[in-house]
Amino acid sequence: MKSLQDKIVKEGNVLSDEVLKVDSFLNHQIDPKLMKEVGEEFARRFAGEKITKILTLESSGIAPSVMAGLVLDVPVIFARKRKSLTLTQNLYTADVYSFTKQETNPIAVSQTFLTNEDHLLIIDDFLANGQAALGLLDIAEQAGATVAGIGIVIEKAFQDGGKLLREKNVRVESLAMVQSLEGGKVTFKEGALS
Amino acid sequence: MKSLQDKIVKEGNVLSDEVLKVDSFLNHQIDPKLMKEVGEEFARRFAGEKITKILTLESSGIAPSVMAGLVLDVPVIFARKRKSLTLTQNLYTADVYSFTKQETNPIAVSQTFLTNEDHLLIIDDFLANGQAALGLLDIAEQAGATVAGIGIVIEKAFQDGGKLLREKNVRVESLAMVQSLEGGKVTFKEGALS
Repeated sequence: MKSLQDKIVKEGNVLSDEVLKVDSFLNHQIDPKLMKEVGEEFARRFAGEKITKILTLESSGIAPSVMAGLVLDVPVIFARKRKSLTLTQNLYTADVYSFTKQETNPIAVSQTFLTNEDHLLIIDDFLANGQAALGLLDIAEQAGATVAGIGIVIEKAFQDGGKLLREKNVRVESLAMVQSLEGGKVTFKEGALS
Repeated sequence: MKSLQDKIVKEGNVLSDEVLKVDSFLNHQIDPKLMKEVGEEFARRFAGEKITKILTLESSGIAPSVMAGLVLDVPVIFARKRKSLTLTQNLYTADVYSFTKQETNPIAVSQTFLTNEDHLLIIDDFLANGQAALGLLDIAEQAGATVAGIGIVIEKAFQDGGKLLREKNVRVESLAMVQSLEGGKVTFKEGALS
């Protein structure tokens, strides 16, 4: 997605060979117009799939998911990263290990909102080691729901997540595929522009 | 806002005289179409204000804020509820006490994204005791930004937050004002429908 790649080049901060910070439009400050484009692109790519719900993870997955949900006309469920007082019973839960934070945290979705009749589009902001996506797949499986695929805003293609998911025959659609952050420069995977 | 009130009546769960759970369209599962309406209504109410940015709080404030930001054509910043590895320096922070959870938690916004030239619309999902809104006002003040007002999706008018904020001469626009949850029934404040 050209406008997304341009934004990453213009505003992304390469903090190391592995860390790309996009706090100005995705992870802290949000660019609503770009999120609308991102949501529309996810909806376009999964248009033939009869999606019933979008499953994402708080907080950065919410904006692109809501925009996609608007076009696909389906609800969005965001998995919670920690327990909430009004969300303590009848949960599907999974443990997600963060390589960045070096800690494991539970994510949870109320059983009320996922059923075995759901055909899900999973959306997340980043795909790096794939741990969050695997946690969401785990939750979908617990619910008996089917998964049409995973929509990722930015995939770090030099990390293992994409390979891991595609080897499980999960369809992964990444709107920007970062090949390398070496030398402080963002290089995109060739042919990945669409 | 009629469609919001109808949704609250239809899908809200009154857990006690003080707790209204709206997990099916706002706090866990999100209704994108309703959020679009909510965002458009915020934009309409603050249309004359030359808003430069929307300030909200993760996670439930994000969906209505992004929809309002889309109409007003301004960025959205969501305050983080806990520290992130890539968000540790140059922060505006405030402590927010939760009466529900009976604990105090920090919220934080990067100094990069708020300046003394900003004219902010603060948006949040619920207004109860007003602690989150006060925390966001505190952060705006630290940045030297001005605040056009606060847009609230659901105000629990029987709690103190709305009074507290209006006494500080902050403009508060609540799209649904719940007068009472007594007897397991949602009653809206008279004349509050718009």
